[in-house]
Amino acid sequence: MGLELYLDLMSQPCRAVYIFAKKNGIPFQLRTIELLKGQHYTDAFAQVNPLRKVPALKDGDFVLAESVAILLYLSRKYKAPDHWYPQDLQTRARVDEYLAWQHTALRSCCSRAMWQKMMFPVFLGQPVPPERLASTLAELDGCLQMLEDKFLQNKAFLTGPHISVADLVAITELMHDEGLSVLAAKSSRADPNWLRGVSGW
Amino acid sequence: MGLELYLDLMSQPCRAVYIFAKKNGIPFQLRTIELLKGQHYTDAFAQVNPLRKVPALKDGDFVLAESVAILLYLSRKYKAPDHWYPQDLQTRARVDEYLAWQHTALRSCCSRAMWQKMMFPVFLGQPVPPERLASTLAELDGCLQMLEDKFLQNKAFLTGPHISVADLVAITELMHDEGLSVLAAKSSRADPNWLRGVSGW
Repeated sequence: MGLELYLDLMSQPCRAVYIFAKKNGIPFQLRTIELLKGQHYTDAFAQVNPLRKVPALKDGDFVLAESVAILLYLSRKYKAPDHWYPQDLQTRARVDEYLAWQHTALRSCCSRAMWQKMMFPVFLGQPVPPERLASTLAELDGCLQMLEDKFLQNKAFLTGPHISVADLVAITELMHDEGLSVLAAKSSRADPNWLRGVSGW
Repeated sequence: MGLELYLDLMSQPCRAVYIFAKKNGIPFQLRTIELLKGQHYTDAFAQVNPLRKVPALKDGDFVLAESVAILLYLSRKYKAPDHWYPQDLQTRARVDEYLAWQHTALRSCCSRAMWQKMMFPVFLGQPVPPERLASTLAELDGCLQMLEDKFLQNKAFLTGPHISVADLVAITELMHDEGLSVLAAKSSRADPNWLRGVSGW
């Protein structure tokens, strides 16, 4: 059995892994795990990934969780072009810095905003209290500002003139909330050249 | 100016970076940033790290935030022994997997437990509501169980027979809450061989 990727393309980290694999011509079997059906909680999936999360990778007997680890594993194993995870010490450190930062910053803020604005009202039958939503959106606003001021700055991509896995991880998060009209006002300030650059890459 | 590390040794990620640098004989200037005095919020520190967080690294003109990125940068630049961040594809992926997982799992759970059990009562003058604390400790319990079942298993260290940066990141987190008697009951089940192994390394 070759490479298997357990994904739900509704999930932002799954899409980053999917795009990376497709863009780099990495052959894989897509194993769809539907989050909305709770398939990640089944015993069968727990055998693959005890963390019960997607994405998960299975490469023979080797099973790996966490999208960041999967992206790095794929880039190394399939010798993806250098720009995705550059050999240059400082540029690579910039990619690592973004990948570490986003867990508790952009990803966390985007997810909370989406749940509070879109999902909780559906599941609970009533909107989240306005002051709670306002606080979440203000936090998201702060994250977006940091994304621009600290990471993107005036560069074409987050860590320099070339696209890296950091851009994939960021853009799948942003486009998710953008598509669901969840993003706060500041999102409209996200550099359109970067958005076009990543989308058109 | 050589390598400078901006640290507060009260902080778990700072201690991981500090131990790594000391253990590997990496020469650095310690720049202490006292979190309890709010020194990370000063304009002077924001010039170093706009994220206003420690640890931060300054190596000439190059400034880097995020403990995980700093550990990997140091291990590469100073060619630390392989076991810290192994070249082997699958072992390295295991380290990456833990480093990605812990952000929103063990680190997040330990921090919340410490704040709710120790810090909020001091700052707010009253304990956190018992049901909220119980829920946080139950979540911490789940994280500790996952640390053992998924990551440590029956190995000497988190990712195999040798210590890696994953162990440093984990142990500084656990020892912090252990020291403050914050850990839930399950912590006593953390494999004592692993705890001794990392501490005695």
